[in-house]
Order: sequence, then structure tokens, then C-alpha cells
Amino acid sequence: MEGVDHLAHERSKAQFDVDQMKVVWVGSRHALQVSDRIARLVASDPVLRKDNRTMMTRKELFKNTLRKAAHGWKRINELRLSEEEASWFRHYVDQPAYTDLHWGMFVPFIKGSGTEEQQKKWLPLAYKMQIIGCYAQTELGHGSNVQGLETTATFDPKTDEFVLNSPTLTSSKWWPGGLGKAATHAVAFARLITDGKDHGVNGFIVQLRSLDDHLPLPGITVGDIGMKFGNGAYNSMDNGVLRFDNVRIPRDQMLMRVAQVTREGKYVQSNVPRQLLYGTMVFVRQTIVSDASTALSRAVCIATRYSAVRRQFGSENGGVETQVIDYKTQQSRLFPLLASAYAFRFVGEWLKWLYTDVTQKLQANDFATLPEAHACTAGLKSLTTSATADAIEECRKLCGGHGYLTNSGLPELFAVYVPACTYEGDNVVLLLQVARFLMKTVSQLPSGKKPVGTTSYMGRAEHLIQCRCNVQKVEDWLKPSVILEAFEARAIRMSIACAQDLSKFSNQEEGFAELSSNLAEAAVAHCQLIVVSKFIEKLQQDIPGKGVKEQLHNLCNIYALYIIHRHLGDFLSTGSITAKQASLANEQLRSLYSKLRPNAIALVDAFNYTDHYLGSVLGRYDGDVYPNLYAEAWKDPLNESVVPDGYREYIQPLLKNQLRNARL
Amino acid sequence: MEGVDHLAHERSKAQFDVDQMKVVWVGSRHALQVSDRIARLVASDPVLRKDNRTMMTRKELFKNTLRKAAHGWKRINELRLSEEEASWFRHYVDQPAYTDLHWGMFVPFIKGSGTEEQQKKWLPLAYKMQIIGCYAQTELGHGSNVQGLETTATFDPKTDEFVLNSPTLTSSKWWPGGLGKAATHAVAFARLITDGKDHGVNGFIVQLRSLDDHLPLPGITVGDIGMKFGNGAYNSMDNGVLRFDNVRIPRDQMLMRVAQVTREGKYVQSNVPRQLLYGTMVFVRQTIVSDASTALSRAVCIATRYSAVRRQFGSENGGVETQVIDYKTQQSRLFPLLASAYAFRFVGEWLKWLYTDVTQKLQANDFATLPEAHACTAGLKSLTTSATADAIEECRKLCGGHGYLTNSGLPELFAVYVPACTYEGDNVVLLLQVARFLMKTVSQLPSGKKPVGTTSYMGRAEHLIQCRCNVQKVEDWLKPSVILEAFEARAIRMSIACAQDLSKFSNQEEGFAELSSNLAEAAVAHCQLIVVSKFIEKLQQDIPGKGVKEQLHNLCNIYALYIIHRHLGDFLSTGSITAKQASLANEQLRSLYSKLRPNAIALVDAFNYTDHYLGSVLGRYDGDVYPNLYAEAWKDPLNESVVPDGYREYIQPLLKNQLRNARL
Repeated sequence: MEGVDHLAHERSKAQFDVDQMKVVWVGSRHALQVSDRIARLVASDPVLRKDNRTMMTRKELFKNTLRKAAHGWKRINELRLSEEEASWFRHYVDQPAYTDLHWGMFVPFIKGSGTEEQQKKWLPLAYKMQIIGCYAQTELGHGSNVQGLETTATFDPKTDEFVLNSPTLTSSKWWPGGLGKAATHAVAFARLITDGKDHGVNGFIVQLRSLDDHLPLPGITVGDIGMKFGNGAYNSMDNGVLRFDNVRIPRDQMLMRVAQVTREGKYVQSNVPRQLLYGTMVFVRQTIVSDASTALSRAVCIATRYSAVRRQFGSENGGVETQVIDYKTQQSRLFPLLASAYAFRFVGEWLKWLYTDVTQKLQANDFATLPEAHACTAGLKSLTTSATADAIEECRKLCGGHGYLTNSGLPELFAVYVPACTYEGDNVVLLLQVARFLMKTVSQLPSGKKPVGTTSYMGRAEHLIQCRCNVQKVEDWLKPSVILEAFEARAIRMSIACAQDLSKFSNQEEGFAELSSNLAEAAVAHCQLIVVSKFIEKLQQDIPGKGVKEQLHNLCNIYALYIIHRHLGDFLSTGSITAKQASLANEQLRSLYSKLRPNAIALVDAFNYTDHYLGSVLGRYDGDVYPNLYAEAWKDPLNESVVPDGYREYIQPLLKNQLRNARL
Repeated sequence: MEGVDHLAHERSKAQFDVDQMKVVWVGSRHALQVSDRIARLVASDPVLRKDNRTMMTRKELFKNTLRKAAHGWKRINELRLSEEEASWFRHYVDQPAYTDLHWGMFVPFIKGSGTEEQQKKWLPLAYKMQIIGCYAQTELGHGSNVQGLETTATFDPKTDEFVLNSPTLTSSKWWPGGLGKAATHAVAFARLITDGKDHGVNGFIVQLRSLDDHLPLPGITVGDIGMKFGNGAYNSMDNGVLRFDNVRIPRDQMLMRVAQVTREGKYVQSNVPRQLLYGTMVFVRQTIVSDASTALSRAVCIATRYSAVRRQFGSENGGVETQVIDYKTQQSRLFPLLASAYAFRFVGEWLKWLYTDVTQKLQANDFATLPEAHACTAGLKSLTTSATADAIEECRKLCGGHGYLTNSGLPELFAVYVPACTYEGDNVVLLLQVARFLMKTVSQLPSGKKPVGTTSYMGRAEHLIQCRCNVQKVEDWLKPSVILEAFEARAIRMSIACAQDLSKFSNQEEGFAELSSNLAEAAVAHCQLIVVSKFIEKLQQDIPGKGVKEQLHNLCNIYALYIIHRHLGDFLSTGSITAKQASLANEQLRSLYSKLRPNAIALVDAFNYTDHYLGSVLGRYDGDVYPNLYAEAWKDPLNESVVPDGYREYIQPLLKNQLRNARL
């Protein structure tokens, strides 16, 4: 059956140039070529197989992670991969490892917060992996509230050292990836204390383990915090616990780019503005948005392919049953998620541009747009990760019972993804930050201060408050300007309503707390507007390839109308659209699903994922699901013997009614 | 620190009699006494410990399941537990096992579908566990569509036997619990073929394994289907695959209560009406609704207690931070779930009554109310399981990062629960069944046929279509009649709108398919009305205990107003309430949260769960979370050695830049 393609018929129905869509998805022809080559390289490497992952014990899994990380580093060096290639390589290895934190947090943080001298000392060691770094911020009792951290770093002028301590149990560092077993060094965050005075939280480079034998250094207690959600998933990572008992580090291991402690123990701010640090935050959150579209697209790819393979009902006379992808209930749950994957991809692409823009402005000491960029990145991080987590689980359900098998790939995808809703800013906390920014923007409107960037629509508040959606027939919902205005009207009306409710409180902070749930909803409305508007902007670009733009138009409309349907209460209660218009939107949505249907498989093929990367029997490119599900079953450890271990002790005596005297 | 209670202060704030609420929750004083005694018995039994479950390999876990099942059976017999006590015992063991299917499906099905003679033969064997039974219905390619099953049972008049075969790969039995490794017998479903004629799907008792050595009988291929979602969770169950290759069974092993095959091979219907079989379905689904409230209440109990323990932000001057349960964002996510747990409990209680009622009517050959009972049970199964699955994950997120640790109990609770959305009727398929029934009811309204039971409000269609909600101030939303009418208006208007849209199609089936998504939403509206109305009915009962009824009133209002908020689009687009009234509902909801707040811990204490049953460090009764999280960490297998296994091979050579020559 070599070369069978059960989905060939589906592929032949596509009305667009799939290869060009691949370019659009990944960003450029060059990126497609590189990523495709590296994906195949990783997929063909036996050390990097993933299919056995969910059956491993924690220890086997972790050892396997260490092996993959070492092997990957070896291959990257052997093949002299470029930075871009190496990054794709790590991406396709697709197993959380200490290296993620080393490259993703430790190195960038030293770059961002170290002085030039510090960078010169530490970065070469990190680049060559002669040290392994992690990022030790959160504590057992302290997550979101960084200013509440309890670890202390007290300056000892006698020895010119900092003395690190974990004064309470809740001050134990808790969660940092790579800390548990692998890292030799950490950027650790602690309250800086000089001469009895608390200067708040600062970062310090601390060596944790000996470079000779990997044993923890004196005063350091370190270990893994235990099993996490799911089979395989994040259990390949050694999230760790760390306690300091009078651990001494030289003064020059405080990261001193924005503030320093002098030899005499004086705390002085440098002339580098603190805002520069926000740049790193924008960078990290932008990659999270991009990762959201990746995770979502993987789940959608699996669910879409299997929905074309799977058949249920619809056969009256014993003929073939209907493909489940042809059911409107299936389409109305699946296609909006497919559209969301594309929507998040493009807003992520735009965020990458925003980061560059912000960085340039920061370097020119222009901080004017930073709050807006910060709010918008925070909001999009929250919006896309929450939506993606829910969507992966929805995709699992869309695969029926078989989605519950780990070899469907979806359970692990879900379990490995959900922390994104919590790390780098809890999603609700982030929405409240956005809301705070929106309230500030609204309050400044009367002064004539022009809102910038993604809030610039608020400059048209007067119009948006009184405008009326003029959709009269189903086709009107295809106009980008109509959609955009409905989203803008809803967003600004919700913000203004919140501001008005807030103004009734004498204490603003109390009001903010009391109304926080409404405020978070207003923030969501604002962020959904950003996603829709960036998708529409994308469509104004020149996009080559037969039928490609038509498909993207279709996806954009599906995303927008789906959001209207899901958040109909917002749109109706603000009067942004009428009930009649909502019903027309729904009708349009159904017809858009029909247009998408013949292109569904090709649209997920455009993600260009190898079967290795997808890691799903249900999502196989060739659609040959059932023989492979059947074959996979027999690999389970329970099937190593026909009669299970435990039969003699626990089943036989039960059946023979001889339990009474058994020692169980 | 023996006897510490970090939540004592919370408990002292309760404004009601917790002990009386425990009685309300579990159903009666007697049930509370029995369940409490058995829960403690299970919790104190070292064989039944659960805390090590997520670290076991599949084989260890399964052997442990066999051990617990045998031990449980031994204890039940030793202690001469009554049927009621034994059922609580199995419940509190809280580990999916082959016994669930034996007692929950195999025995009831033989009772429901076997002739008296068959019952006399098989039930005593099953009751004494001299055989272990499973329920083999679904196939690799066939889940929801039972009529599409492919397994065949062909009558051979020469030998007076049925010959069972699995003619295709997709006809392999797939998923049945207990089948994989434990069961000796199955009720297997197959197409009955006599004299070349296909009579559709029937049930057969088939022996699978030898009672001497547990080896599969000739012609039988059987095994486990592999790992499923989550750590521990359903992996303790041996969901199985089964293929028949000319397996012969005597004719009297076809379950013949409603149809028989004679010695001559003639297929004859008995005089027992087929509808009787629906009774079993109503029974099984009613237990699923009751299980939903249990699962939901466990998750809510964990999240509520930890929300009172956990503190973040809110301290200006280094004092204690604010308990996260005091944040309105936390309350607006958590309290509706607490209210839902109670709501589902009461609707489940009512379904138990409905089942008894239906059974009595069936026995009296009265089938009039069966379709309504069937639709309502199907709908409530769908509604409560979907809501519960989502709610467990929401509770996990409400615990912040620590909810991601398996020792929070929430990951396993989620993974073990989600199949409930798929088994015993996929939730979307069930909603469409409800919708079909609603459309039929609407279509019969003009004829004057009076809708019965939960659809009786449709008899007031004329009024409900034109009535206007007369809420004018916040307090008006506390009136049960106002809430009920809003829900009734919304439900019937959605149903009627669907019926009108359907009437535009010339082909009704095509219309139903095209509008299925709207139809499912109308079904949800109908089911939510049932939940609300049964909660309101409950409150009309005499409920003793200081403050108990007040708390239940509060929870009922929270549930109803929360649903209005979440489905605001429905309520507004049908004109059932106005935007202004929606805003008042929201305001009322916030004030209800404040009323609930001091009672939150006591309301979850009323579930009366032992720490053993909860299985959560975060949800500990004493709130002593952090020292225990810390202590648990060190039990992880990765912490067995300070330097991890794999260091010499994979970390040391990397740090020393000696990977080049390493064999990885």
C-alpha cells in the first residue's frame, strides 16, 4: 500500500495553489525551503522519534530529553547549521527541554539586562553551551506578582559579595524550566538589600551546580517539582525548585545594565532607561502569539484530516456513510478554528514587525508608543493562547472517541500547550492590564490626545458611538469596512461603558476591582478587533498564487463572523448590530463554510507539517488511519503478554472465589 | 502542626448550617451517614492509596487496578457490605476498572435484554464474579451510529449456533472497557444474519477467555488499544480491541427478550415492546448527570479552597497580599461553577425520580411520556457533561501555575472526565436528537396536542412569544418567576425560529442538516431551562437548617444570571430581555457574588469529600498547601538521585565540548 493517499480526492478538489499558500503561511519562499528541509532532516533521524514518548516513565523520558538535546546540539554543529536553521531544528525536535530556557530566556535576558562587560563574559560561555542557564523568577508563593518575590540578595561590603537567601518556604524558587536537573547557572531574581535597605527585585547570575560533577554548590538545594499534566508533554522538562542558604556570589554577578551596586554598597540607577527591558517582554510575548498559531494549526490539521477520513451515519442502504466533515455541526465547530489559525498567524507576523519598530524607537529614546505596544502584545498573548488552548481540546472532541488515544497526538498537544495561558503573564491579569490602558486612553480623549497604533480607532469615538451598521442583506457581511466598523463600534462602546461605570465610584481602584470582569471583556473586544483588522490589512497586500487570496478572504470573513456569533451579546447590547443583522451574519457564515469545504484539506496541507512533527495517527497525511490505529494498539506495554501481569494474584483467585485467604 | 486549619477563619464566616447542607447535597441523612462511613473506610485503607498513581507505568498502574479491584471485592465480602455500601465503596476507590463495566453495563444489560431463563443462568455467575463481563458495542470505524456496526453473527442451523465474524478491519470491536485484559465474557453486538437475511444489530453473550488460564478462546483476537489522555486517569482501564474469526456460540446466547431466533432459524419479535430498552438508556444517562455534578464539585472544591489559600498582589506596604478569592475576576469565573455543581446535583436528583416514573409507566405499557423523557435525559447528559469538562479545566486555570502539577488533582480529574462528552452518545449528536424532538413538539402545537413534562411550557407558546420581561431594577432579577419566564421565552423563541427557518426548505432532512448548528443551540436553551426550573422547584421544597435555603436561593440565582450573561446573544436576539435588563442582571450577579463570598468554603465543605477522595494538595481540607507541595516534589522519581541519570552521557560531554566523538 506504499503511496496510498486516501485524501487524494480531497486534495484534487482544492481551488487554489497550495504551494503558494505554504509560502504565505510560513512567511517567505526562503523560509519555506529552509523549514521544509530541516523538518525532513529531523523527521528522518531515529534518535528524534517521538511516537514512544507517552509510554515512557518520567526518568526514561527525561533521559531521552537529555539525549535529544545533546544529539541536536551535535547535529547542529556537525552540519554547521545557521542560526535560522538551528532554530527550525530545535522547533521540529518538538520536545520541551532545558535548552528552551537556555536559548529562549537565559541568553536574551543577559543580552537585555547585562552590561557590555557582563555580556562579554557570559554570552560566549552560553553560546558554546559550556554553561547551561535557566531563568529563576517565580516562587512557590509568588507567580504573577513579581514585586512580591521574597528571595533576598544582601550586599556584604566586607567581601564585595551578595548573599542569597530563601527566608521562607514560599520564597523557594518554583517552576523554572531546566532548573530541576540540568542547569549549571541561573538568572535568579531576588530583592536587593544594601545597608538594610530593600531596593526591590533585581536579577543575578548564580552558579547552581559544579561544572566538574554537576553536584549542587554549597548552600543550594535544588530538585524537580514533580509530574505535570499529561503523558509525555511537559514532563520532559525538569521544572525545578531552588532554595538558597547563604549562597555567596561576586558583586559583578548582579545584572547591572539599568541599576548598579557600587563597591561601597551604594545603589545607583544607570542612565539606561528601564523601559528598554519592556522590549524583551514584547519580544517574548510576540513569539508566544506565533507559537499559538502553530499549536492551533497542528490541532486543526489533525481534526480536519480525520474529519475527512471518518464517516458516520447518512447511509440509508448500506452504502458508504457520510464524511463527518460534511456535517454542518462539524463545520461550524472546526472551520472557525481553521480560520483562527490563519488569523493568529497574521497577527503574529504583524507583532514581529511591531517588535522591530518598538526596538528602533527605543534605541532612539522614543518611548511614546511603548505603552500601546505593550498593551497590545499583552492582550494578544492572552487572547490567542486562551483561544488556542480551548481550540485544541475542541479539535480533540471533533475526532470523537479516538481523539482520546494518545496516539491521536491531541492529548499531548493540549497538555503541553495549556501552560501558555499562565506563564509570561496570567491571561486574566494581562487582560486587566489592557483594560487599564484602554481606560486611560478613553479618559484622555476629551483632552484631544490622539490615540496611537491599535487604539487609533478610538480617535473616531464620536462617529463610532453613534454609527449604525448598514447591513441589509447577506452579502453586505462580506465587506471588510462593514465588519471592521462593527468590531470598532463594539470595542469602543464597551470601553466607554466601563469608563462611565467606573466614574460612579469615588475610589477608582475599588471601582476597577468591582468591575474587573466587565473590564476584561472590554479588553477582549479590543484584542479581537486587532486580530480582525490585521487580517484585513494582510489582504490588502499583494498575494500571488491562483486562488490564494480568495481563500484568505474566506477565512478572514469566517473568523470575523464567527466572533460576532460567539460574542453576540456584546454586539447586540452595545447596539453595534441588530438582531436581524446577526441572523444575516449567521446565514452568511453557513454559506462561507460551504465555500471552504472543498478546500479544507488543502488549507491544512499548506501548514506543511511532516507526519513526524504532527505526531498523530488520525492526522496522517495519507489518511490511512484505521490500519495504523490497529497496528499501534499492539505496541502498548500491556500487550507484551497475552495474560496480564497480576492475573495469578488478582484475577484467578477472584474468579475461583478464593480471595478470602489471599494476601493482596 | 497536627490539627492546623488554615481555613478555620473562612469556616467561621459561614452563614448557614453546613451539616444540613451536607444532607441536602447527598440526598438524605441516611445517605450522608453511609457515604461518610464508607469514605473514611476507603481513605484509611493503604491498598487503596491514590497519590502514587500518576507516576506509575502503564503496567504498574494496571496491575494496581487489578489489585484494588480484588481487594475491594474481598473487603466488600468480608465486611458483608450491603449493595448500597458496596456501591459507595466502589465509588470512593475512584479508579476506573473493569468492574465498572461489569456492574455498570454487563449486569444491567443482561437484566434488561435477557429472557428470564438467560437471567437465571448468567446473573448469579456475574453477581459472584465467577465471570467478568464487558460491553462490546463500538467498533474501530463505528461509534455513534450503532446501526452501522459491521460485526456479524450468522445462524448456522446445522449446529444450532451463531458464528461470529469481524469481516473488516473497521469492524474490530474498539474501546470497550475491561475487554483488553480482564473480561472473561462480553455482551457483543453484531448484525444478526439468518438464512442470508440481515436483521440488524442484536446482543450476544460471548465467552472471550478461558476460565482456567485466561487465554483467549480459539478465533478470538483481543488486546488493549493503548495509552489514553492523562497521567493515571483512564489508563487504569483496559479498553480493548476484539476480533472474531468464526467464533461459535450456542443459539441461547443471543439476548432474546425482545427478539428471538428459533431452532429453525426464524427471526421472531417477542411481545416485549422494544421501548423497554430505552429504560436502560434513561437509567445510564441519569447516572452520568449525577456523576457530572460529582466531578464538577470536586474540581470546584479544590479551586475554591486554594483560592482562599493563595494570595497575590494587593499589598502596598509589604503586608499580606489579597486572597485571590476576593478578586471579582476570580469570583466571576469560580462562583458560577460552584452554582453549577449544585444545579446539576438537583437536576440529577430529579432525573432519578424521572427514571422511576418512566419505569413504572413502561411496566404499565404506557409509552406516552417516553419520547419526552428520552429527549430530556439525552439533552441533560449533553449539557452537564460538556459544562463539567470545561469547568474542570477552568478550575485548573483558576489555581494558577500549580494547577498544572498532577498533585493538584485537576489534570487527572479532567483527563478521566472528558470521555463523558463522547461515550453514551456524543454530546452534539444528542443535542440534535433533542432538537428533533423540539421541532416535532413545535409542529404539533397548532393541532392542540399538549406538550408534556419538560416541554409543557411550550403549551404557553402564544404568551411566551409576545411576553416582555418586566425587570426594571436590580432586585427584580431575584424573582424566580421573572427568571423562569426569560428562560422559557428564550427557549421557545429559538425553537420556533428554527422551525420557521426549517419550513423554508422543501426537503426537511436537508434543512435539518443545514440548520443543525442553530438547532443544537435551541436544544441547549431548552436544557438550560430545565436545569433552572428544577433548581427553582427544589427551592419550593421544605429544606431545614439555618440559612441553608438562603444559600441555595443565592446559588440558583447565580446559575441563572450567569447563563443569561454567557448566552446573552440568545436572550437579546430573541427579545426575551433588553440590553438594559441585561446590564441590571450583571449588576445583580456581582452583588450575589459578594453574598456568596463568606460562604464559599463552607459550601464546598458541604460536599463532604475526604482528602483521599479529592486527591489534591491544593484542595486539602486544612489549607496547608505549600509545605505539602514542597514535600511532594521530592517524591518524584527524578529526585531519586541528585545528579540525573544521563548526566555522564549527555550533559557532561556537552559542557566539555566533547560531543563530537560521543555516541549518543
